[in-house]
Amino acid sequence: MNIAILFGGSSFEHEISIVSAITMKKVLKKSTLTYIFVDSNREFYFIDTKAINAKLFSSGAYKKSKQLTLKKNGFFADGMFGSKAVDFDVALNLIHGRDGEDGKIASMMEFFGIPFISPRMEASALSYNKLYTKFLVQSVGVKTVAYEHLSKNDERKIGMDYPVIIKPVRLGSSIGVSIVKEASELDYALDVAFEFDTDVIVEPFIEGVKEYNQAGCYTNEWELSIVEEPHKEAFLDFEKKYMDFSRDSQVLAADIDDVIKSKIQESFKKIYDPLFNGSIIRCDFFVVDGEVLLNEINPIPGSMANYLFEDFEGMVERVAKNLPKEQNITVDYQYIHSIQSAKGKA
Amino acid sequence: MNIAILFGGSSFEHEISIVSAITMKKVLKKSTLTYIFVDSNREFYFIDTKAINAKLFSSGAYKKSKQLTLKKNGFFADGMFGSKAVDFDVALNLIHGRDGEDGKIASMMEFFGIPFISPRMEASALSYNKLYTKFLVQSVGVKTVAYEHLSKNDERKIGMDYPVIIKPVRLGSSIGVSIVKEASELDYALDVAFEFDTDVIVEPFIEGVKEYNQAGCYTNEWELSIVEEPHKEAFLDFEKKYMDFSRDSQVLAADIDDVIKSKIQESFKKIYDPLFNGSIIRCDFFVVDGEVLLNEINPIPGSMANYLFEDFEGMVERVAKNLPKEQNITVDYQYIHSIQSAKGKA
Repeated sequence: MNIAILFGGSSFEHEISIVSAITMKKVLKKSTLTYIFVDSNREFYFIDTKAINAKLFSSGAYKKSKQLTLKKNGFFADGMFGSKAVDFDVALNLIHGRDGEDGKIASMMEFFGIPFISPRMEASALSYNKLYTKFLVQSVGVKTVAYEHLSKNDERKIGMDYPVIIKPVRLGSSIGVSIVKEASELDYALDVAFEFDTDVIVEPFIEGVKEYNQAGCYTNEWELSIVEEPHKEAFLDFEKKYMDFSRDSQVLAADIDDVIKSKIQESFKKIYDPLFNGSIIRCDFFVVDGEVLLNEINPIPGSMANYLFEDFEGMVERVAKNLPKEQNITVDYQYIHSIQSAKGKA
Repeated sequence: MNIAILFGGSSFEHEISIVSAITMKKVLKKSTLTYIFVDSNREFYFIDTKAINAKLFSSGAYKKSKQLTLKKNGFFADGMFGSKAVDFDVALNLIHGRDGEDGKIASMMEFFGIPFISPRMEASALSYNKLYTKFLVQSVGVKTVAYEHLSKNDERKIGMDYPVIIKPVRLGSSIGVSIVKEASELDYALDVAFEFDTDVIVEPFIEGVKEYNQAGCYTNEWELSIVEEPHKEAFLDFEKKYMDFSRDSQVLAADIDDVIKSKIQESFKKIYDPLFNGSIIRCDFFVVDGEVLLNEINPIPGSMANYLFEDFEGMVERVAKNLPKEQNITVDYQYIHSIQSAKGKA
């Protein structure tokens, strides 16, 4: 299978998308990979798979690559003898953060009829926003961490006890996130968060909370990863997350009891189906007093959470073969025809 | 001001979008209008403003028009001497239903840096889906009509009393909507609705409910329309709605008391700000026992609800001058640089 890796984007996570994309070379070994780079200016470039490395982008040398135009049914390169489509079977959307996770790439792939692996537009819009994620998750009967919502112009007052964690609603990779231990620190943390977003959510910060990650997808059956207990600090800062996005070797399953494991899996399925069909996502859960709470949905997890699956490459192929189909709409102009024939008779 | 009217789309409401677009010629008299048609196959065409009429589309004659390509900063026509951008100051998204109201056009305009009047992607994704509209509206403290949600594979059982109204969650213009008077009719109505969508909402059908429409926007101040009490039947079927989309003369304000009017206006503002900045929307409210309940958000109302405003054309210009700005993201490759210099030292 020829998989086009879409990466980069006008996103705070542009650089970690490059890391995720390069990691795919190590985990999708049997596939043909076709790299399509979206630069920070949102121009598309065809990147030679053999030559790909991080420096190509940081040095600006990628600009010598062939530029592409997104049109109906594909990405096209202009040449001497007209416009030629880049050849691939499916696009894998690996753009983290804005453009990739917010629904823009999904919108464009759907509009232009390009088969793609990624959450669809609606799933993206909801999961990109941590406040809307709360609505979504509650509506399918999964519990979430308690929260309050503050907009930029709201009074800076919160009702819950400290310590709390402040998160801009629309960003991933811990950007703009702070832990606030007492009221005196709130203002500064909100200043930081509001630099990145107009809205934040405030959640209780639970020291040493048990966290478990579950990735998976539905192909023609459920394909759930192992449940991982990530060994991490309070939270990952950007540089640590950066390294985290280059993971490529399988990890061990968390040592948890079957009841919790099955609660995590059931919660994942409720969130995923049918909204996230066509994508491989990772959900991060907290377990508090035996209760499973959704912490976050990662609609395009770092390196696609490949390290949680036994047969990641096979699964990517199976997702590609089971993509949701857009509803076919036929426009037959029957209303305009009937109005015109009515006018003709008048 | 040169306004590009984007219309058509791969949508069940393709034809009424054509009607809305043609109506703009009558209401935007001082502006230069540039028509860009999205055909049902999602190809873009430049339509001569002088020649525009419904038959151009129903006959297929539009295919002789110049085809356009959407690229960074505009729509481009290929000619003898290279590619030339179509000239306009702002695009007005007049695509009703799929493509226009679901967030795809908004995504593409934003991605390619084209100034546009329309709900942004997030506002579109939420308001295109009647279930998510409920979440959104409740989160800003506005009440909605009671509802139940049914997915295609759910048991066909409802808890509320008849009569009820069944609506596919993702369609506008009353497509797939039925009033169900008793339990024996439920199955058929659901069959109809599920032909168009995977999810429906069920609401009580309130005979003779008072309905009021409020349109508006925020430019550098609130610009609210008169409140209209639409004189309509139980609900408009497709052909009646079709005629409704060609309205171009101002209507009279509803005769309502100031308390209700101000509740309607406050509810509109809560829903609109800040999510719908950059757009002109219409919210349809029910008033039941003095309580204002949101019925529906029309993110791209028929003919832009021009008939509710005294100075529609001036307002369109003011919206164009006060569009929300996308956050600027600079990619400086500092993480890749720092990792590479660390490697160099090793």
